[in-house]
Amino acid sequence: MEYPTESIKNVVEALSKLPGIGKKTSLRLTLHLMQKSPQEVEELATALYNLHKSTFRCKNCNHLSDQEICNICNDTKRDSHLLCVVEEVGDLLAIEKTGYFKGRYHVLGGKISPLEGIGPNQLSIPQLIKRIQTEEIHEIIMALSTTQEGETTAFYLSREILSINPNITLSHIAKGIPSGASLEFTDEITLSKSLIHRSQYSTLNSINS
Amino acid sequence: MEYPTESIKNVVEALSKLPGIGKKTSLRLTLHLMQKSPQEVEELATALYNLHKSTFRCKNCNHLSDQEICNICNDTKRDSHLLCVVEEVGDLLAIEKTGYFKGRYHVLGGKISPLEGIGPNQLSIPQLIKRIQTEEIHEIIMALSTTQEGETTAFYLSREILSINPNITLSHIAKGIPSGASLEFTDEITLSKSLIHRSQYSTLNSINS
Repeated sequence: MEYPTESIKNVVEALSKLPGIGKKTSLRLTLHLMQKSPQEVEELATALYNLHKSTFRCKNCNHLSDQEICNICNDTKRDSHLLCVVEEVGDLLAIEKTGYFKGRYHVLGGKISPLEGIGPNQLSIPQLIKRIQTEEIHEIIMALSTTQEGETTAFYLSREILSINPNITLSHIAKGIPSGASLEFTDEITLSKSLIHRSQYSTLNSINS
Repeated sequence: MEYPTESIKNVVEALSKLPGIGKKTSLRLTLHLMQKSPQEVEELATALYNLHKSTFRCKNCNHLSDQEICNICNDTKRDSHLLCVVEEVGDLLAIEKTGYFKGRYHVLGGKISPLEGIGPNQLSIPQLIKRIQTEEIHEIIMALSTTQEGETTAFYLSREILSINPNITLSHIAKGIPSGASLEFTDEITLSKSLIHRSQYSTLNSINS
C-alpha cells in the first residue's frame, strides 16, 4: 500500500510490529495520531524513549524495577519462605492484582521450548537455583501456563529443585473449571483433570467458597 | 493498578489513549516492548517524534502530504473536473485502494455535528467552497458515511454548492446491499433503500457486473 508520506509509513510499520496490531489497525492508529496535537504524540514518543532507560530487571527475581532490587523483594512484610514461579511479568502482575499472595516471586522470562531454542540457560533458571541454595525457602508454587511447554518447564524445575533440597514443598496452582464457566463448553482435558483433582467439602460453609 | 516502574506507567497511559486500546491491552504492549531491545523501541519512538514534523495538510484538498500540495492534487493525469468529498484521510485511502477513482478529493476532516460543536467552519468546508468558485469542477461525488451526521453534512454541502454553481452535477456513492451480504440479515433501512434505488439491467452482460 502507498502511504501519503514517508513518516506515516514509518509509524505504520513500527506500530504494526506490536502484537495483535496489523497493518490496517496500525494505519488507523497513525491517522488518529495525525489528528492529535504534535505535543500529545511527542508525549507518547518520550514515554517510549524513556522506557528502557529507567526500567531494569530485578537482580534477585527478574521482575521489572527502577532499582537493582524490586519493591517486592525489598518488602520485609512479605513471606520470604514462600516463592511463586511465573513465566512473565504479566503473570506476576495478574497474581498481585488478586491481592491473595503474600510471598515473593521468581520471573523465568519464558518457558522451556526446545523448538524455539529456549533452554534453562536462556531463562532465569540458574538464578532460581542460586536462590534455592542461598535463601531459606519452604514452599515453591509453580504458576506456569497449562500448556505442553509450561508443564515441561514445571517438570524440569521440580526435578532440579528437589535434587538440591528434597525438603522443599512443591505445589502448583489449581487446574480446573474457571470461575463462571459452563461444564458443557469445557474441553475434555480440563474436565477430566477437574474430576481427578476434585476437592472434598470439609464443612457446610465451604460449599459456597 | 500499581505498575512496576514510573516509566512503564507512562507508556501504559500514553498507549491507552489510542482508540481501541484499553489499559489491559496497553500493559500487554508495554511488557512486550520491555522484552524487545532498546533500539527497537527507540525506532518506534523516533518514528512518532517525526510524524508531525514532516507530514502536513495539503493546502488544496486537506489530504496528508509531505509537501504544501499533495501528490494527488499535483497529478496532472487525474481528472480535475471530478471531485470526491470524503470525511477523513482513511476514507480517501480506502477509495484509492480500489483503483477505480481517477478524479481528485476534498477531505472535510470530519462531519457536521452540532452536538459535538462541529459546524462548517470547524471542517475544511470554506476551502471546498473556494475550490468550487475557482476550479472548473463538473461533478462532485459525496462519499460520506451513511449516518445521520453524514447525511446532514451531505445535505448542507449540496445546498451550498448548488447556490454557488447550479450547473455542477452532484452525486453520492451508491447505498445498498454490500457485496457478499445475505438479504436475510440486512437491516430494513438498507434493504428499503436498495429497493428504491434499484438499477435496471441494461444488457445481459451487466447481470454479472
